[in-house]
Amino acid sequence: MWVEDKAKPESNRRTVGMRQHFVNGLVYCTGDMMHFSQYMEDKAFIFQLFEWSMRGVARVILANNPLSGVLILGALVWASPWQALLGTLGLLTSTLTAVIIGQDSEEVSGGLHGFNGMLVSLLMGVCSSAGDWYWWLLLPVFLGGATSTFLYSGLAPLLDKWDLPVAVFPFNMVILLYLACTGSSNPYYPHHPATPLGELESNASQLSLTQLLQGVPLGVGQIYACEDLGPSVLILGATLLYSPLLGSHALLGSGAGTLAGLSVSVRHGALYSGLSGFNGALGCMAVGGLFFTFNWRTHLFSIASAFLSSYADIALSNLLGTVGLPACSWAATLTATLMLLLTGRSLSAYRIPTGRVMAPEQNIRCHSQWAARETTDSTDV
Amino acid sequence: MWVEDKAKPESNRRTVGMRQHFVNGLVYCTGDMMHFSQYMEDKAFIFQLFEWSMRGVARVILANNPLSGVLILGALVWASPWQALLGTLGLLTSTLTAVIIGQDSEEVSGGLHGFNGMLVSLLMGVCSSAGDWYWWLLLPVFLGGATSTFLYSGLAPLLDKWDLPVAVFPFNMVILLYLACTGSSNPYYPHHPATPLGELESNASQLSLTQLLQGVPLGVGQIYACEDLGPSVLILGATLLYSPLLGSHALLGSGAGTLAGLSVSVRHGALYSGLSGFNGALGCMAVGGLFFTFNWRTHLFSIASAFLSSYADIALSNLLGTVGLPACSWAATLTATLMLLLTGRSLSAYRIPTGRVMAPEQNIRCHSQWAARETTDSTDV
Amino acid sequence: MWVEDKAKPESNRRTVGMRQHFVNGLVYCTGDMMHFSQYMEDKAFIFQLFEWSMRGVARVILANNPLSGVLILGALVWASPWQALLGTLGLLTSTLTAVIIGQDSEEVSGGLHGFNGMLVSLLMGVCSSAGDWYWWLLLPVFLGGATSTFLYSGLAPLLDKWDLPVAVFPFNMVILLYLACTGSSNPYYPHHPATPLGELESNASQLSLTQLLQGVPLGVGQIYACEDLGPSVLILGATLLYSPLLGSHALLGSGAGTLAGLSVSVRHGALYSGLSGFNGALGCMAVGGLFFTFNWRTHLFSIASAFLSSYADIALSNLLGTVGLPACSWAATLTATLMLLLTGRSLSAYRIPTGRVMAPEQNIRCHSQWAARETTDSTDV
Repeated sequence: MWVEDKAKPESNRRTVGMRQHFVNGLVYCTGDMMHFSQYMEDKAFIFQLFEWSMRGVARVILANNPLSGVLILGALVWASPWQALLGTLGLLTSTLTAVIIGQDSEEVSGGLHGFNGMLVSLLMGVCSSAGDWYWWLLLPVFLGGATSTFLYSGLAPLLDKWDLPVAVFPFNMVILLYLACTGSSNPYYPHHPATPLGELESNASQLSLTQLLQGVPLGVGQIYACEDLGPSVLILGATLLYSPLLGSHALLGSGAGTLAGLSVSVRHGALYSGLSGFNGALGCMAVGGLFFTFNWRTHLFSIASAFLSSYADIALSNLLGTVGLPACSWAATLTATLMLLLTGRSLSAYRIPTGRVMAPEQNIRCHSQWAARETTDSTDV
Repeated sequence: MWVEDKAKPESNRRTVGMRQHFVNGLVYCTGDMMHFSQYMEDKAFIFQLFEWSMRGVARVILANNPLSGVLILGALVWASPWQALLGTLGLLTSTLTAVIIGQDSEEVSGGLHGFNGMLVSLLMGVCSSAGDWYWWLLLPVFLGGATSTFLYSGLAPLLDKWDLPVAVFPFNMVILLYLACTGSSNPYYPHHPATPLGELESNASQLSLTQLLQGVPLGVGQIYACEDLGPSVLILGATLLYSPLLGSHALLGSGAGTLAGLSVSVRHGALYSGLSGFNGALGCMAVGGLFFTFNWRTHLFSIASAFLSSYADIALSNLLGTVGLPACSWAATLTATLMLLLTGRSLSAYRIPTGRVMAPEQNIRCHSQWAARETTDSTDV
Repeated sequence: MWVEDKAKPESNRRTVGMRQHFVNGLVYCTGDMMHFSQYMEDKAFIFQLFEWSMRGVARVILANNPLSGVLILGALVWASPWQALLGTLGLLTSTLTAVIIGQDSEEVSGGLHGFNGMLVSLLMGVCSSAGDWYWWLLLPVFLGGATSTFLYSGLAPLLDKWDLPVAVFPFNMVILLYLACTGSSNPYYPHHPATPLGELESNASQLSLTQLLQGVPLGVGQIYACEDLGPSVLILGATLLYSPLLGSHALLGSGAGTLAGLSVSVRHGALYSGLSGFNGALGCMAVGGLFFTFNWRTHLFSIASAFLSSYADIALSNLLGTVGLPACSWAATLTATLMLLLTGRSLSAYRIPTGRVMAPEQNIRCHSQWAARETTDSTDV
């Protein structure tokens, strides 16, 4: 190899150098980018807030990478500028609320207090039937963002007894409370009532395979309540940038969700728009690599988790649909929490403590290091 | 001052003495009146039971003062003798059940096992559509009172892991179970189905400012399911007697609840009757002084808690209203619990351990004593 | 005695011997039969699996005896072979899932991972409106059985903080999710919507005392979703074989449930079919002897628990009935959990730690041994 390289002409050598630079840059940009956090430490507050917020944007899809956050925000602007504005405001409100009420600064800088607020405001925008640029909506966006931080802070000690992450529980609670509080025909904040996934269709037509396949990447976009193909693919790309393993599990989970939806014949619209897939995607990602070291066993469990999330989502959607509420991501959050609690040795042996969770690729590396160290330790003893 | 006093004529001096006596008496009657408990310790069981019960009556509004209890019971008799009778029976049943099943005697003598039973029986009476003096209602009153003690006893170890008070969780559970069990058209125990706060009104008239302002003190009375202005003001007075800080937070919270109700346009009847205010009042009282040392920070949090309780109440009322059930005080109880769990340093630094909670005024005094002692301790070390 | 025995003729002596053998055999077959587990330890896996499964069958009714399991399975085959087949498949699926995901082998061999799966599949069969021998139903049976093991494994660490058993929580969750997921008019998995217990009857006829009395033993059979008198009596017999105390509490609880149903006038069909009694039976059994040492105090608590379970069941049935779902055994499970949490000394003094629970008769014996030992210990000290 070395000999060959030396024999290459100058131009070729430069290409190799550029390629090397590109690979280095890519490695620099993937994963948790903790070095970037260190680099930002002594910068102005406004730049730090920008980094925290971008991490917060990416946290929604379980990634922790400011660059992914920028890409995803770009995708949201592409899909709908009004939605992107709402999301950003919700994100900033909840992050600043966390700063004001004195939350742990490490959590704040990791973006942990932003993603729930962002999701709340995105969903408020999607559910609103008052049209885009309805400025009164900013009031509940501010309130909802702040409330989600309160809930995050309050749920943390509860779940901490079992070393469970708070995840998107606050978002799910706040958005249900907001929608139940205003009701569908509110004079100030009207919204579309949610349609249960299992609703019977009067004019059920032939199933279109193309649209069905489109539903799989759309399921990834639906995590951000985004229903366009282009932005969804960009969101998927941002996830792949953070971690190829996480991104492929997102696609896999969305596919499993679509299959689950087919097996109990949910309405076609939900299959095409990715609504039946996004809970599966979240459930699959959480187990396959993020909270557990990746291997063939946890991979099987991640598929089980995807199906479980999807079926639970259909059930909750039918239940909450009777009062006109959406099921949000309750199913995936509950299923992932269940998986984290599982005592069966086949899964619990690969559990990563919540405080040590990193990008899946780094998790694998660290796990083998621990294992090696523990072996050494037990040999010493 | 001393010279002036000496120069006063005899009659004036007597007035001062009387005023002094009056102030002493007032100081004696306010706060937790722990000296009265000590005085009662060696009295007959029936007198002790009376003291425990009166403390139980006051506990509903977070006060712990037998005299406030007597005043409140008077207010209830004024509003409706039948309701007062039901409340007293529920109170006695649950207190005696606690004695029989062997609960901690300190808890019993503090009235902690009475207030849930009282609330259950008051609500049973209010919801019943069989009219006053329907004696068959005593059966569920006895059962409900006993059940609320069972629930109190069972929830205590659950919540104790996070040092949370049981509060009115038992009442909220028992009354929902009772109403769901009998249903609105039961042949033996019929009741009025609850109307959701957000229900649209067919004949929505102009908002009356006078009635709206009346709704604020009525919101304090609604904590005891009392809808008359006179008794409500008396209840407010009893709270002010226990602690002026707590009483003013009750009014403040009720006002916040009315504002929250206006902002999402709940039905006018709920605003006028104080139904939209009482959860705000409870949420505001719990944070502003009782479970946290009073200062401007916790004061801001108490206002946040009032708004949060009110919005959550509207949401729950709309949800439970679809099956004809009232939202009771679920919202305030859950919000106060959330506030107690909050990890943000701006609030959690002022948290008073549940076992040490006293009247707000005494909380402030004790907190400064602790702070002083801790400073001394850390200096010594 | 000895002299008399000697004086008996030979034939009489043989009868006595046979009677002795019979008594010995009966003693061998009753209780937990732990000796049988020891005997099976070195047998082939298939025989062990059979023992585990039979224990799992009996666990549904809180018994832990393989012979009771065989009798009950016989009763199910008698009532409906298709139902028995479904139950067995669910039982095997969940037991094998537990083996595969690496659950504690002691729990598996005690049948703890089987009974939830069995109940799930039994209820799937009963609720299905596609008729018997609808083979597609095996798909949800397999999925539901596996999911119930996942839930059992995940709930265990949650409940373990308060030393609570997981009981039938997984069954109740999975069956509600399944029914909510498919909905009543699903093209693949249709099912009968549940009728609330409190529903008004248009043609309410005179109450028949005979049918009412038949409802009491039928309430025991309803624990296995069995509605025929013969098999129900056989199930009761199997319980009596395990422990006469447990069996009589089952009957007592079912009777209490029928009384509770009468007092709030549930529909007659529910009284006759035992639907209003089975939650009472479960609640009564759990407190009277199983989780508490039997004595007159816990006996009174077991009756209270039976009534509480029954009323809670009617309430939950009315609530869940509005969305067409059955209340299953939520009421009894929650009530028993509440009783286990009770801090009142009259009950908590007799609490048996979850890990030490045995047949009621053995519980009494062990308790007196502990008491004796503790007395000795404290004397020594």
